[in-house]
Amino acid sequence: MKARVTVMPKKTVLDPQGKTVAKAIRHLGMERVTEARVGKVIELEIEGGETNEARRKLEEICRDLLSNPVIEDYRLEIEK
Amino acid sequence: MKARVTVMPKKTVLDPQGKTVAKAIRHLGMERVTEARVGKVIELEIEGGETNEARRKLEEICRDLLSNPVIEDYRLEIEK
Repeated sequence: MKARVTVMPKKTVLDPQGKTVAKAIRHLGMERVTEARVGKVIELEIEGGETNEARRKLEEICRDLLSNPVIEDYRLEIEK
Repeated sequence: MKARVTVMPKKTVLDPQGKTVAKAIRHLGMERVTEARVGKVIELEIEGGETNEARRKLEEICRDLLSNPVIEDYRLEIEK
C-alpha cells in the first residue's frame, strides 16, 4: 500500500517561510495571492495491505516522528 | 480560490532525507516500509476565481519559483 502524510504549520502558528513565498509570488506579478503556507509531504511505500494495525502504527509515526504536534497538524491518507 | 502545489524529488533523483525517514520508521517498528520520499507542499489563498490567466501564471510560478525542474516534479491543484 501507499501512504501520504501532509504536515502543515498550525493556522495559529506564524509561518515565515510562507510569508516569504507569498511576497515572492506577488513580486512575480500575481498580486492576488493573500497567503501562502509551506508544509511538507512524505510519501511512503509499504509492503502488504491496509490493516487496522498498520493504520494505528502509521498514526503513531505521524505523531511521534513526522510532525511536531505543538506547531504542526498532519493529515494521513492511505491508498489501496 | 485556493491552490495547492506539491513538489517532490523526481523518481530518478536520490532522496537522502527520504532514506533517513524510511530508516527511522523501520526503527520505530514498522519494518514493512520499503521507501519514503520527502517533498514540500505550498498552500495558496488567492483572491478572485479561477481563470485561464490565473492558472497560466500559477504554472509559471510553480516552474520558476516553487520547484527546481532539474530535480523536482510539481503538481498544481486548484480548488473552487
